[in-house]
Amino acid sequence: MTQRLHYSNDVNTTLNFLIEGGNYNAVIVLVDTNTRRLVLPQLSCLDNASVIEIPCGDENKTLTSLTHVWQELQQCGATRHSLLINLGGGMVTDLGGLAAATFKRGIPFINVPTTLLAAVDAAVGGKTGINYGGLKNEIGVYAPARHVIVSTCFFSSLPLQEVKSGFAEMLKHAMLSSQEDFARLLNFSFDSIDQDKLLELLRSSVKVKERFVNDDPTEQGLRKALNLGHTVGHAFESMAIERHQPVPHGYAVAWGLVVETVLSHMLLEFPSSQLYSLASFVKDNYGAYHFTCDNYPHLLDLMRHDKKSLAGEINCTLLKACGKPVVDNNISSDNLTAALDIYRDLMGM
Amino acid sequence: MTQRLHYSNDVNTTLNFLIEGGNYNAVIVLVDTNTRRLVLPQLSCLDNASVIEIPCGDENKTLTSLTHVWQELQQCGATRHSLLINLGGGMVTDLGGLAAATFKRGIPFINVPTTLLAAVDAAVGGKTGINYGGLKNEIGVYAPARHVIVSTCFFSSLPLQEVKSGFAEMLKHAMLSSQEDFARLLNFSFDSIDQDKLLELLRSSVKVKERFVNDDPTEQGLRKALNLGHTVGHAFESMAIERHQPVPHGYAVAWGLVVETVLSHMLLEFPSSQLYSLASFVKDNYGAYHFTCDNYPHLLDLMRHDKKSLAGEINCTLLKACGKPVVDNNISSDNLTAALDIYRDLMGM
Repeated sequence: MTQRLHYSNDVNTTLNFLIEGGNYNAVIVLVDTNTRRLVLPQLSCLDNASVIEIPCGDENKTLTSLTHVWQELQQCGATRHSLLINLGGGMVTDLGGLAAATFKRGIPFINVPTTLLAAVDAAVGGKTGINYGGLKNEIGVYAPARHVIVSTCFFSSLPLQEVKSGFAEMLKHAMLSSQEDFARLLNFSFDSIDQDKLLELLRSSVKVKERFVNDDPTEQGLRKALNLGHTVGHAFESMAIERHQPVPHGYAVAWGLVVETVLSHMLLEFPSSQLYSLASFVKDNYGAYHFTCDNYPHLLDLMRHDKKSLAGEINCTLLKACGKPVVDNNISSDNLTAALDIYRDLMGM
Repeated sequence: MTQRLHYSNDVNTTLNFLIEGGNYNAVIVLVDTNTRRLVLPQLSCLDNASVIEIPCGDENKTLTSLTHVWQELQQCGATRHSLLINLGGGMVTDLGGLAAATFKRGIPFINVPTTLLAAVDAAVGGKTGINYGGLKNEIGVYAPARHVIVSTCFFSSLPLQEVKSGFAEMLKHAMLSSQEDFARLLNFSFDSIDQDKLLELLRSSVKVKERFVNDDPTEQGLRKALNLGHTVGHAFESMAIERHQPVPHGYAVAWGLVVETVLSHMLLEFPSSQLYSLASFVKDNYGAYHFTCDNYPHLLDLMRHDKKSLAGEINCTLLKACGKPVVDNNISSDNLTAALDIYRDLMGM
């Protein structure tokens, strides 16, 4: 990882400093419809940058958007000495990172995540990707941004749903870190959000991710711990897309966390009291994702197609306790079925 | 570079050994129309492999072919524990390498180059790519194959033109290596080719490439020496595609080598006697690429769009002498125009 993280709520100054220091022959900024309108005007250091715009939303994290970015980079005359700045949520940083990593076999890029979800997850750690063939992040590479600017100053314009979505990844990091971190987050209130306090929570949350990523940048072993909640969460997310009722990624992760914590309790004796605390926090703040037993076979099938899975098996990270992850658990269909039953009970379905 | 090279004319045994040792959950082989017919039947170790076929020819090194490979990999249920074998020329190894490197953020692949050009160049060194927007290898990544099997046993079915095309890259390596290597290659005769002798020449040629690649895997500095002949060569190749009369890559490199050696003589005092030897060898074996002064502005424009170039400049590797490359020369339009004039003289145009 050659990626450098900068925590700052004065993004314009920080970004300007990084641009000046980089000696680039061109600066290009990638935005989506929302960040062009709401965020780009706040960054005067980008007044002279070329702008590439893509439509917002995960449903546009596609090959079509990617080829649009490639074409525009060509149009701008971008070279390996040009800089791409990805200004947006995880969709923009994932897709823009992939565009930069593959254009002329790689040009430098800086991520400026504008959502909590992107700041705590997508923009940090070098994973890039697009959805393909109905599967999330099916096409992508590991390619670290040169810099990532982590801030909370753009979150005030976000819907609460977006903040909650990012918070689910922070919950995951806390569970991977310690019981104390986990308890601290369960006490967080979404009613009146203190941006500076949130930046501090975010800083320690990102540090958890950094620790796992630095130990294992291409996900051969320990980094898989970061997939906690995601094998099941991705299946929920994929099913929601198929139903044409997409759900925010973090919501899917929150629900996935509950199911995988149920599995952790069943298989590794994760304490039941903490499982109940998690389930109740998730239910109160995220509601429940609804499905019936009839959906089980398809959900299991989606999990088997997860990148983390070997052919035909379902692979999850589980927890013995907070701070004690165990990677590469192969989950039987029976156990997963039981866990989905318990999830539906806990969520009052 | 974690890429391992194996020199062998018993490809079936070598490949079988590498497959057995890899513990893959699936083996998929990428072929083009030609290698499916001529080469695949010779490799019994692939009898049970899934086969993905793409149409042959550099004009099919496109996003369309790439998406076809992605779709087929999905169809085969390929995971990160599956193996892709790229069996073909540079088009197959470049495109297949990119497909493998981007599918689920990277699955392992083995290159089995079946042309001299691919063996000496494309399949070795970790560059992958497709052509895009009219530019060669515009989209790609650096991703080493897990293994490369270098052999000459498939060359006997190749047209002589194909062998000559690869030989041009060997010429380049020899010029980067020493005057002795260069002289040895100029004595090579295409009239009766000894496959074992060629494997030995190939081995020392690949070693030259390996040395530069290992010193600088992502082409920040010294590896650029390997671009000798390619800034001008790529421009010839691109123009030939635009004219709907594509030329073999190696032929374009041979002509590019002549122009860049002219520049080396003009700017760095490369010995004129060796320039004349090169020009006469190239003229005798490759003919000449024809164009007029009217084409100069467009050729220069194509060179300015080369990946190696900064915005608006033309960047070439040149030679003080054989074995003494100088990277990152910015060439003025005047000098390049003069060199193109001299090239046309030398080639008797």
